[in-house]
Amino acid sequence: MLVEKKTVKLVYPFTTESGFVIAQPQVAYEEYGTPTGPVIMLCHGGLSSHHAAGKHAPTDMQAGWWDALVGPGKVFDTDRYRILSMNALGSMFGSSGAAEIDPATGRRYGPTFPDVSVRDQAHFIKAFLDHMGIARLHLMAGPSMGSLHTQQMAALYPEVVGAAIAVATAGRMTASGMAMHHFMINACKGDPEFADGWYEPGTQLFGVKMIWQVMRIYYTSEKIFRIKCFDPISHKPGAQRMRMDATRRFLMVGLENGIAEYDPNALITLTNSVNTHDLGDQFATYEEGVQRIRCPILLMNIDHDQEFPLECAQELASILNAVRPGQATERMIESAWGHLACVLESEQLSHHIGAWMKAQNL
Amino acid sequence: MLVEKKTVKLVYPFTTESGFVIAQPQVAYEEYGTPTGPVIMLCHGGLSSHHAAGKHAPTDMQAGWWDALVGPGKVFDTDRYRILSMNALGSMFGSSGAAEIDPATGRRYGPTFPDVSVRDQAHFIKAFLDHMGIARLHLMAGPSMGSLHTQQMAALYPEVVGAAIAVATAGRMTASGMAMHHFMINACKGDPEFADGWYEPGTQLFGVKMIWQVMRIYYTSEKIFRIKCFDPISHKPGAQRMRMDATRRFLMVGLENGIAEYDPNALITLTNSVNTHDLGDQFATYEEGVQRIRCPILLMNIDHDQEFPLECAQELASILNAVRPGQATERMIESAWGHLACVLESEQLSHHIGAWMKAQNL
Repeated sequence: MLVEKKTVKLVYPFTTESGFVIAQPQVAYEEYGTPTGPVIMLCHGGLSSHHAAGKHAPTDMQAGWWDALVGPGKVFDTDRYRILSMNALGSMFGSSGAAEIDPATGRRYGPTFPDVSVRDQAHFIKAFLDHMGIARLHLMAGPSMGSLHTQQMAALYPEVVGAAIAVATAGRMTASGMAMHHFMINACKGDPEFADGWYEPGTQLFGVKMIWQVMRIYYTSEKIFRIKCFDPISHKPGAQRMRMDATRRFLMVGLENGIAEYDPNALITLTNSVNTHDLGDQFATYEEGVQRIRCPILLMNIDHDQEFPLECAQELASILNAVRPGQATERMIESAWGHLACVLESEQLSHHIGAWMKAQNL
Repeated sequence: MLVEKKTVKLVYPFTTESGFVIAQPQVAYEEYGTPTGPVIMLCHGGLSSHHAAGKHAPTDMQAGWWDALVGPGKVFDTDRYRILSMNALGSMFGSSGAAEIDPATGRRYGPTFPDVSVRDQAHFIKAFLDHMGIARLHLMAGPSMGSLHTQQMAALYPEVVGAAIAVATAGRMTASGMAMHHFMINACKGDPEFADGWYEPGTQLFGVKMIWQVMRIYYTSEKIFRIKCFDPISHKPGAQRMRMDATRRFLMVGLENGIAEYDPNALITLTNSVNTHDLGDQFATYEEGVQRIRCPILLMNIDHDQEFPLECAQELASILNAVRPGQATERMIESAWGHLACVLESEQLSHHIGAWMKAQNL
């Protein structure tokens, strides 16, 4: 499936919770499937782009991150649905964010781009839908940060979101994930080359290379390092040195390409934003905030995920089902890939999503 | 208890497995207790010093890391035992290592100091004991890296080590711990100020500040961040922002003092060394290597430790007890502090160590 990069400028300015006005908001997005079908909106993970499916050119090495789920006859069936995938507010892949041009100055926003919250990002999705003339989503779905956007949209706009799928998720940010994000922010801001956010665009900060390695450890699991670096090396003299080499390589695989497109200012915006996530904020209780979600929702966490353990999905499901029995369905993804399973375990994802959509008559 | 910093130069040169000759080996150590008593040897954790107990001056803020275990009437009873605590080979607190002077050049070894293995470090302990005229250890004990030295000494010199206590331990290095160490090495070597290891002594690398924050996350647990940063802040509007601030602070607490004495070259030596740990290396099977340990051994891992999970101690105990039933005793430390519990949970450590020593007639 060949797909096109699209960008749209919204007509109305967008104002964040903190009062910052983005005069000419811009949304980068992709569209797949049947233009007249019911609309499915996909939201991407924190440091991913909105390139969820297909390839931009036949020579691309890799397809989008949920390519196994999007296509003819797949669970997000392009023969039936109109599927949109948009770049989040504050991200680095074409929507309004630190890497984009501030029309007031003619240069990139850089560190002047404001902190945004997950609520801001949900309102931004709504602004995009309004611009596109889409009043209702048949379904909204996303992994990791995209799952938070999905939840927050469902909570803020229950009349818009018909059903929701949240993979690797929580109703409020976890403590260890928040700590990891603070490390990431410090690793950007503390790097001498960061230059208070006015680094030359394209600069690959040493701090970002470190972030990448820590992410490889934190967003996977001990088990995947064992499978990849230890198990293939059988017991013999010097085996431990060979395991050390294999571990070093696995830690670094993909780093150069992986960080090539990371913009440190945007990385700060995004991690800060995810840290704000709390469905209960501004409500008398956390439960009250969660229970604003009224649509059917499928929650899938991963058994080895260090950022969003299984309990996070279980907690959400039990709070929702306490008032609307059967509203939330919870499924476990089993994977040594840890958090990354939210895009890598496509067979399990397809299986659970397909079964749930059928049961919900979606 | 006031204690003295001591240093001794060994008479004989020390040769590492890789063939590097340390012409004038030096050992920094401390000594507590009764000079004529049975000898207990303590080994420190990776980035700790050998300052295990007491204070150097009455005005010191903190006592040594196992102070709760060492003293009159404590489990390592200074009224009964002679207790030695020595700085490991390659460490940065006074024993031969990258930060010390190379007598051949008159300047610090820096990056010319060789890679060492846990076996090298065990042989170095033996060289120190020989120098001190100590033929037999009543007991050897240590947390984290010190537990690896304890195990390896017991395996290499079964006639020397009478009994062993290993806290936060494994018979071979774990995959996630190894990956974390590689990150730490890269964070030192990749820092522009590292200057191929010829940085100005005392330079506080940005990379080391990053390591410190990642260690705060990896060597503790999600639970301690929840207890310290989330639980004290009750639900109210803006609570999530307050939790973010608390998390940011907890991530940074102690950083300045914590890294003041870290020497990046030594940090590389030590993490490389721990990565080599494999009791089975050079033996037909892992089990055969482990079973060279013949003394009674107490193994204590921590329920929330990400580097050395409970299974590591269980594995060791079952391999040992398979040939010598009752040789190994395994106890669990329960702690949200994760790996750091190996020095912080002094009540549980005292309790289990005291009971075990009594049962073993130590």
